[in-house]
Amino acid sequence: MDVRARLESLGLTLPPVPKPVAAYVPAVRVGDLVFVSGQLPFHEGKLVATGLVPTAVSVEEAYQACRVAVLNALAAVAMVADLDQVSQVVRVGGFVAAASDFQDHPKVVNGASDLLREIWQQAGQHARAAVGVSSLPLGASVEIELVVRL
Amino acid sequence: MDVRARLESLGLTLPPVPKPVAAYVPAVRVGDLVFVSGQLPFHEGKLVATGLVPTAVSVEEAYQACRVAVLNALAAVAMVADLDQVSQVVRVGGFVAAASDFQDHPKVVNGASDLLREIWQQAGQHARAAVGVSSLPLGASVEIELVVRL
Amino acid sequence: MDVRARLESLGLTLPPVPKPVAAYVPAVRVGDLVFVSGQLPFHEGKLVATGLVPTAVSVEEAYQACRVAVLNALAAVAMVADLDQVSQVVRVGGFVAAASDFQDHPKVVNGASDLLREIWQQAGQHARAAVGVSSLPLGASVEIELVVRL
Repeated sequence: MDVRARLESLGLTLPPVPKPVAAYVPAVRVGDLVFVSGQLPFHEGKLVATGLVPTAVSVEEAYQACRVAVLNALAAVAMVADLDQVSQVVRVGGFVAAASDFQDHPKVVNGASDLLREIWQQAGQHARAAVGVSSLPLGASVEIELVVRL
Repeated sequence: MDVRARLESLGLTLPPVPKPVAAYVPAVRVGDLVFVSGQLPFHEGKLVATGLVPTAVSVEEAYQACRVAVLNALAAVAMVADLDQVSQVVRVGGFVAAASDFQDHPKVVNGASDLLREIWQQAGQHARAAVGVSSLPLGASVEIELVVRL
Repeated sequence: MDVRARLESLGLTLPPVPKPVAAYVPAVRVGDLVFVSGQLPFHEGKLVATGLVPTAVSVEEAYQACRVAVLNALAAVAMVADLDQVSQVVRVGGFVAAASDFQDHPKVVNGASDLLREIWQQAGQHARAAVGVSSLPLGASVEIELVVRL
């Protein structure tokens, strides 16, 4: 499967992989698994969503931010493996910066899940944990972590 | 090992697996590992515990809710693998909706750990991370994520 | 590689592994992977940092606490595998107890990442997710989870 062509047909392009904001690497391959670092919604060097959901950004904006974070995650995969050889998305960890009365984390993290399914269909379906956190690096509204199998 | 019989001897039955509240699947198998999506404490279609621990629900209620979430996690495992072939519970991720002064996350998530040990004894002992989060999907008090080995 | 000698050259020693504060085990080995339970910054039986970052403890104190937690994580690895046979640190999960306006989680969790790189250099570079949580077990300021490959 040609993932870049598939992204293009979705009107998307793979970004340059964001430089880790700290002392780690974007992705590590162990055997046929790739563990991707938690990705923030960076687009052209800027976070597209900062602050708590839904007060600072809406559920829809946070959904879109998850799509952006997934693109960064795929760029990270591509650093250590051929993106076209991904055979299964295994796990998505979705962290949403949210207050204690927020309940719509699934709607937000669907931004990640929907895009992965748009790209890989059946093979894009994954296990997922979505939780609300008190804050995220650099004030980001969402962070997406990924494990894929080649 | 007959897990369903073991559950029955504990007075428990495997529930129907809750429909994911979003665009993902309850569990994914990769080789001999099964990654289970974060499970909420659904019982007969309703969350048994909502709101922050310990203000909205007690530590004991949240402990019981973790047992309920584990049953859902096992039902998810059973969708992709024979539950009787689980050879080791590998990892439990325990998320507790809690305020900043809460300290008893371990007592809460023990609801998950104790049940897994009741079912599988030695093979039910697992690595675990328990943390306090600001909020969880649908207002749930706890969420349990699981990795098991076949 | 002699990890204990390397630690000694860094002025560090492997602590006795902290007893899990609950019904689980410090680490589980599956194949060539070791999953380590979330470790708190225990030093000689006491937490070196409690409360929210940066109000109760500074970023620098929390950074140091992450180093302490990593030592405990390595002691946990050593319970189930030969520490000298670690070939790659795969993933670090870094949880920082923090309020909603905190942004410097990466600087805090670098305490874990830096130490792992000091010990294993290239093989110590890992995928990482750093998030801010509302609270942690026993009031700890940080919790570090680890996956390593042998």
